[in-house]
Amino acid sequence: MDKKEYIIRQLGRTKNKKYEAYVVSRIIHLLDDFSVKFVTQQYVMRPEGRALTDLFFPQLGLHVEVDEGQHFVADNIKADKIREADIVNTTGHEILRVDVTKSFEDINNKIGNIVQRIKELKNQSVFVPWDIDSEFSPDTYIKLGYIVVSDNVAFKTIKDACNCFGHNYSGYQRAGAPHPDSEVMLWFPKLFPNGEWNNQISDDEEIIFEKNEDAEKAKEHFLSHLNNKKHKQKRIVFAKVKGNLGDTLYRFRGLYKLDTQESNENIGLVWKRIERKVQTYPQPKC
Amino acid sequence: MDKKEYIIRQLGRTKNKKYEAYVVSRIIHLLDDFSVKFVTQQYVMRPEGRALTDLFFPQLGLHVEVDEGQHFVADNIKADKIREADIVNTTGHEILRVDVTKSFEDINNKIGNIVQRIKELKNQSVFVPWDIDSEFSPDTYIKLGYIVVSDNVAFKTIKDACNCFGHNYSGYQRAGAPHPDSEVMLWFPKLFPNGEWNNQISDDEEIIFEKNEDAEKAKEHFLSHLNNKKHKQKRIVFAKVKGNLGDTLYRFRGLYKLDTQESNENIGLVWKRIERKVQTYPQPKC
Repeated sequence: MDKKEYIIRQLGRTKNKKYEAYVVSRIIHLLDDFSVKFVTQQYVMRPEGRALTDLFFPQLGLHVEVDEGQHFVADNIKADKIREADIVNTTGHEILRVDVTKSFEDINNKIGNIVQRIKELKNQSVFVPWDIDSEFSPDTYIKLGYIVVSDNVAFKTIKDACNCFGHNYSGYQRAGAPHPDSEVMLWFPKLFPNGEWNNQISDDEEIIFEKNEDAEKAKEHFLSHLNNKKHKQKRIVFAKVKGNLGDTLYRFRGLYKLDTQESNENIGLVWKRIERKVQTYPQPKC
Repeated sequence: MDKKEYIIRQLGRTKNKKYEAYVVSRIIHLLDDFSVKFVTQQYVMRPEGRALTDLFFPQLGLHVEVDEGQHFVADNIKADKIREADIVNTTGHEILRVDVTKSFEDINNKIGNIVQRIKELKNQSVFVPWDIDSEFSPDTYIKLGYIVVSDNVAFKTIKDACNCFGHNYSGYQRAGAPHPDSEVMLWFPKLFPNGEWNNQISDDEEIIFEKNEDAEKAKEHFLSHLNNKKHKQKRIVFAKVKGNLGDTLYRFRGLYKLDTQESNENIGLVWKRIERKVQTYPQPKC
């Protein structure tokens, strides 16, 4: 998907709410700067739970919400859908609101202010222009030297995530992969019940629960992880999620460590986040 | 409906085609001049028949079409729907096209050129700023002194049309009304088969056919109009149409004269346009 397709599809997603479509398209066109990435209808993690924002600028940590009435959709959308959705962490993000019940002039003034604010934020920060080709590329993060939750990093394939950690895979489909640190594993779980596994992540993303749906297998899984050295007790997690254009993404969640005290046969394995930032590794020279 | 509601609803109409929505919203927001009226998905009369244009600026006689593949919808939409639709005459209009199969940069450059062209046209012409309150007001046309087809004039009610011709009605529902010239009648027909009448207008709008669906009544209607002086042989026509926001409009079509040679019991009455511009009359002083 190129920038043209991405931008036009993102703008097209607001189609069911005409006020939202007006505000979002006006911001994007008046900003008129396609080095600034945007996402429409992005699920975000908030202290009050998961919610949708109408427009999100990931490079700037800025969200825009169009107040038409209700906009916290957590209760309106099936919980399943949210669990599978791409959810970004909003720590430190700024949220601007447009009240579309105001007059046309007020709405347009507010939008003008938001566009100014976006330009300010772009000038204030260490701004890396949006490059749709490089944002999903392992090279970008290998050069940067790290991956951090606050950068909202996601990859399109498991192999791309793996290749940030010293691999040079041309294809990789398994849910686990080795890491240069022998105590760490790369993990690509579905963090929602999916038939075989009943995995969960807490709303604040700090805890992941991992349990097989089959009681016998769950017990075996629990015991082997506590006792067998071949199972790593630290995992770098890239959760498999559905991007808002229907694409699959593997969203970086951090480094988690097995909590051997909290884990048990009934709850399953309990993983606690110990790092939001992890080092990347160059690909091996051939 | 105020300007805010009008603009947001017009922009919301492009929702099913994402490229069209992108082009239309970008033109409107970059132009950023709400003294320029626009209409989305306007039916127009062309030499090749009736068609839809994606964006129409009635004050400037300018249309924009987004080329996504097919855009002449005459064959794609039920003929009935077109007959009821609000169709404007495009004599002398300019049509600009945006080929959305081109690169993102090309598309945006083309849109930039169109915005420049709109500004040029606005500066070149005797530009009357869009006033949503006055555009459907009889006063506007009484002050102007005339109504002309090329101005795409329509009224929301029959009484408003009547009140451009010396009336001061507070309500009027009939399909005919008197005119200061005793040889002329004001007529507000449905120019499509509607159960009682099987009326038609030619694609170039020059000829209207009027015939009762009932053969006996059609004959009587024909004979009485040829022979009875109480039936005027000239009619100022405001056709009842469905506006593109679902509202009813009475669209000015011109002054038509009964063609006594062409009319007969089988065809019904044949009306030929003799003027595209008619004089308006002040309201009587009370």
